[in-house]
Amino acid sequence: MAPVTRQSAPDPNRRNEQSRAAILTAAAELVAELGFAKLTIEKIAARAGVGKQTIYRWWPSKGAVVFDAFLAANENASGSLALPDTGDLGEDLRTLLRLTALELADPAFDRTGRALTAEVLTDPALLAEYRERLLDPLLAVTRDRLRSAREAGQLRADADLDLAVELLYGPLHYRWLHRLGPLDAGYADQVVAAVLGALGPAGD
Amino acid sequence: MAPVTRQSAPDPNRRNEQSRAAILTAAAELVAELGFAKLTIEKIAARAGVGKQTIYRWWPSKGAVVFDAFLAANENASGSLALPDTGDLGEDLRTLLRLTALELADPAFDRTGRALTAEVLTDPALLAEYRERLLDPLLAVTRDRLRSAREAGQLRADADLDLAVELLYGPLHYRWLHRLGPLDAGYADQVVAAVLGALGPAGD
Repeated sequence: MAPVTRQSAPDPNRRNEQSRAAILTAAAELVAELGFAKLTIEKIAARAGVGKQTIYRWWPSKGAVVFDAFLAANENASGSLALPDTGDLGEDLRTLLRLTALELADPAFDRTGRALTAEVLTDPALLAEYRERLLDPLLAVTRDRLRSAREAGQLRADADLDLAVELLYGPLHYRWLHRLGPLDAGYADQVVAAVLGALGPAGD
Repeated sequence: MAPVTRQSAPDPNRRNEQSRAAILTAAAELVAELGFAKLTIEKIAARAGVGKQTIYRWWPSKGAVVFDAFLAANENASGSLALPDTGDLGEDLRTLLRLTALELADPAFDRTGRALTAEVLTDPALLAEYRERLLDPLLAVTRDRLRSAREAGQLRADADLDLAVELLYGPLHYRWLHRLGPLDAGYADQVVAAVLGALGPAGD
C-alpha cells in the first residue's frame, strides 16, 4: 500500500507520511462534522492542506479515505486486540459486550460507523478490506476465547463457535443499526446470559 | 402522502397512480441492473417514461424512490405479514428463519437490500419510515408469536421478547451484511435451537 519513494531531499517519504496522516485526520473530523453525504474530497484536501490529486493518488474514493481514517483511529484505540481472559467466561464476555455496546452507543462512533457500514454494504472491495483488517481479526480472537472456554468445559463440547460469535455480536449490531433500543451494560449482560444459556454446559 | 388531486378530465388521479407505479417498477429494475451508486433520477425517469420533475414532486431523493419501490415489492410479496402458528414454536420459528435466510441469500434481494440498508443507515428520516412501514410490524408479529408461546409454557415466564426477537434476526442479519457464511436452512435451524436453548423452559 505504501507509495514508491525516491531518496532525495527534502525526504518525500516523510512528507508523504505527514500528508497521509493529515488527510486521515481531516477525513475523520469532517465525517463527524458533516456526515458522509456532505463530505467531499475537496473539503478533505482543503482541511488537510494538500491538493485533491494527492488524495486521489492514494485512494480511489471518499469512501476509501473515510474507511482508512476509521481504521487508523481504531488501531490506535484498540491496540493489539487482546480479549480479557480471567478464566471466567461469563465475566469476560460481559466485559467484551459491555465495551462493544459502549462503543456503538457513542455518538462519535455512531456517525462514522454508520457512514462506514453504508460504504461497506455496497462496495465489495471495501467489505473485503474491512473483513481482512478489522472484522475477521476481532471475530478470530473472540472465537479463540470461546475455544479455550469450550476446552475448559464452560461451553458444550459441540458448541459451534461461528454461531456463538454471531449470537454475541449480531443482536447488538442489529439493535444499533435499526436504533431498536438502548445499548447499555444491561443489554450486553442479557445477550451474554442468553448465549451461555444456549451453548453452556447442559444442566446449568 | 397522496398528491392533491383535481376532478378534471382525463382523470389525473388515475394518471398519477399509473406514473407512480411505472416509476417504482423502473426504480426496482434499475437498482437490480445497475446497483444503487450508478442509479440516477434521470435513468428512472427515462425508463418510466415520465419527466424528472414528476419524480421530484413525490420523492426528495433517489434513496426515497428505491425505498418505496422496495416496500411496494415487499408488500405484494408478503401480504398481511402473518406468521405461522401451528402451536409448535420450534417448527414455526424454523419456518420463519428459513424463509428469512432464503430471502437474504437471494441475489435479487441482496442488491436492493444492501442499497436500502445503506440509505437507511445514514438517513434518519428513511430509517423512521423503514421502521414504521416494514421493520416494526415484522418485529411486532414475531413478538406476538413468542408471547403466545410464552403463555403456552414453551418459553420461560421471564423471557424478554425484545431480546428474543433480536437473538433471532440479529445473527442472520449480521452474517448477511458481512458475508460471513452461508444463509441456509441449517443455519436458520441452529439459530432457532440456540434461542430455544436460551429462553425455552428450564430443564429442556
